[in-house]
Amino acid sequence: MLATDPKRTAALSSIAAIMEPVSEHMDALSAFLDEQVETFEPELREMVRYCLVNQGKRIRPMLLFFSNWSTDEAPPSPDAIRAAAVVELVHLATLVHDDILDDAAIRHNSDTVSAKWGPHVAVLLGDALFAQALNLATHFDTIEVCRAVSASTRRVCAGEIRQTFERGNAALSLDDYFHVIDLKTAELFKVSCFLGAHLANFEPTVVEAYAEFGRRLGVAYQIFDDMADILGDETKIGKTLGTDLASGKYTLPIILLQHRAEGQAKAALEAATHSSDTADHAELAELLQQALRDLGIQEEVSQRFEAELAAGDAALAPFSNQPSAQRLLSLSKFVRTQMGRISPTS
Amino acid sequence: MLATDPKRTAALSSIAAIMEPVSEHMDALSAFLDEQVETFEPELREMVRYCLVNQGKRIRPMLLFFSNWSTDEAPPSPDAIRAAAVVELVHLATLVHDDILDDAAIRHNSDTVSAKWGPHVAVLLGDALFAQALNLATHFDTIEVCRAVSASTRRVCAGEIRQTFERGNAALSLDDYFHVIDLKTAELFKVSCFLGAHLANFEPTVVEAYAEFGRRLGVAYQIFDDMADILGDETKIGKTLGTDLASGKYTLPIILLQHRAEGQAKAALEAATHSSDTADHAELAELLQQALRDLGIQEEVSQRFEAELAAGDAALAPFSNQPSAQRLLSLSKFVRTQMGRISPTS
Repeated sequence: MLATDPKRTAALSSIAAIMEPVSEHMDALSAFLDEQVETFEPELREMVRYCLVNQGKRIRPMLLFFSNWSTDEAPPSPDAIRAAAVVELVHLATLVHDDILDDAAIRHNSDTVSAKWGPHVAVLLGDALFAQALNLATHFDTIEVCRAVSASTRRVCAGEIRQTFERGNAALSLDDYFHVIDLKTAELFKVSCFLGAHLANFEPTVVEAYAEFGRRLGVAYQIFDDMADILGDETKIGKTLGTDLASGKYTLPIILLQHRAEGQAKAALEAATHSSDTADHAELAELLQQALRDLGIQEEVSQRFEAELAAGDAALAPFSNQPSAQRLLSLSKFVRTQMGRISPTS
Repeated sequence: MLATDPKRTAALSSIAAIMEPVSEHMDALSAFLDEQVETFEPELREMVRYCLVNQGKRIRPMLLFFSNWSTDEAPPSPDAIRAAAVVELVHLATLVHDDILDDAAIRHNSDTVSAKWGPHVAVLLGDALFAQALNLATHFDTIEVCRAVSASTRRVCAGEIRQTFERGNAALSLDDYFHVIDLKTAELFKVSCFLGAHLANFEPTVVEAYAEFGRRLGVAYQIFDDMADILGDETKIGKTLGTDLASGKYTLPIILLQHRAEGQAKAALEAATHSSDTADHAELAELLQQALRDLGIQEEVSQRFEAELAAGDAALAPFSNQPSAQRLLSLSKFVRTQMGRISPTS
């Protein structure tokens, strides 16, 4: 069904073009992760494999490889592959534990580990993935990888905690929202860029600039993702409102709606928040989409998204002649195009 | 109630005597951990404090301080305090996640985090404790601390996984049992001794011997703990059979009973395994205690316990003139005395 969606087909061919230069890296990463599966207990291997197959887009490894880029001819370095595996395993671990907290049944069109094998197994699997990632992080000559990854993991954790405790807080401020996504999403984007540049032995100012680019791209990506859930695939809207709203997990457009909606739109939002009936949500969704446009929310979300991307690009500007920076900039351009597709601005 | 138990009073005064030389270290550790509380999110601080107060015996820090011992006059080193905090935080994290897996309501006479705040909060708190521990582990000049702690955490995790997947396997072999406790209990005892000796800059052969002592003491301690649950405090027996047996978590005496019990004892064991009624368990407990004696199980458990302690002591023998080794030997002697009290051998 999704494959025939022309927007999605265009997006996929476009991301394929950006990933093409690192296809060898991605293959090496897949092979490395496959080997890692064997280091888990026999009982967990099937589940680790399941997580790796239903993997998502491997954006964090891509950021790491781009930040690590020297020339088009250089083969992927073993350090970069290992570091990419570390960030991907941390990411997978957070997803596995996240899905317990969200009581989520589906992720990337597949059953979650928590739904498929139960929350107890998901606790253990998440712990094992975390521990394996941090153990791999000690297999470098420098302590910096371990230090950066453990600090990031701590911050991602902090983001999850804030998000969990802010559930259902309809008065969540924009500052709080940005603080949460800075921790839970942008942090791993940032550390991916940091590690790529650090392992390429770039100057500290370059490493810092790349890390800042990663952080800003992470915030922008989360805004895009939230917006895509509401404006993207029509069939998803009911589900999204059903899960995010009913579980009290607020996204940027929804927070702005909470702040501004009045009359019929406010009633629709209230109804969506308190109903768990997906059929209701699909009906309410239209009202809310209309409100997003009428109240200038779609415009404001796009502006905030663009501000983050622009700040990230600006961090890279002094180094824009570097092949690595050019790769990173192609990625922010891609995300910008995607946002333009789902939420065109005048 | 417990304070008037003369056995327990004797045990407490005896452990107090052994801990006396490290009382300054323990105070410094408590102060350090109190400071750590402030690094957690405001929402978690109360829970972290709760875990620290219902802390248990701090055996792992004690092992680390003893292994790190040089002279009675030397003040506790900041590195040793920080390393002790790392192992204690990892230990606390495993307990918090353990109690989710066990659906445990009580630990050390207090509500578990999972029972008090729910399993979702327990997932987050455990993750935050793990991440904070591993982050602290990167604050040393050497990568060894991080490497040892992350490898140990991975192995403790593996032990939990094995234990969880072996639940209810009445045919669990002794090899499997020893493998599980080697991972889930002995590993953190071992790494505590390793880190103490390593941070004291002892020779590699000494560090290795101390680590082996820790591992053996850990196995012996788990055997003692399992035995104490069955033979110790009369009021606890029903509860233990209720939780361990009904949840299919096997201890050494229970495994041996499974292998050997016949007739009435076998029926009692079956009944205890399948009933969740604590009143039944208290009644069945007497039958099982009788069987433990009649079938020579109490004797065999004591022998296996002693074999582990003796192997640990033997590892230290070449260094027995070292003040650090003497401290460690005082601890194995203490555990031996405790076992003799609950399970006297002829």
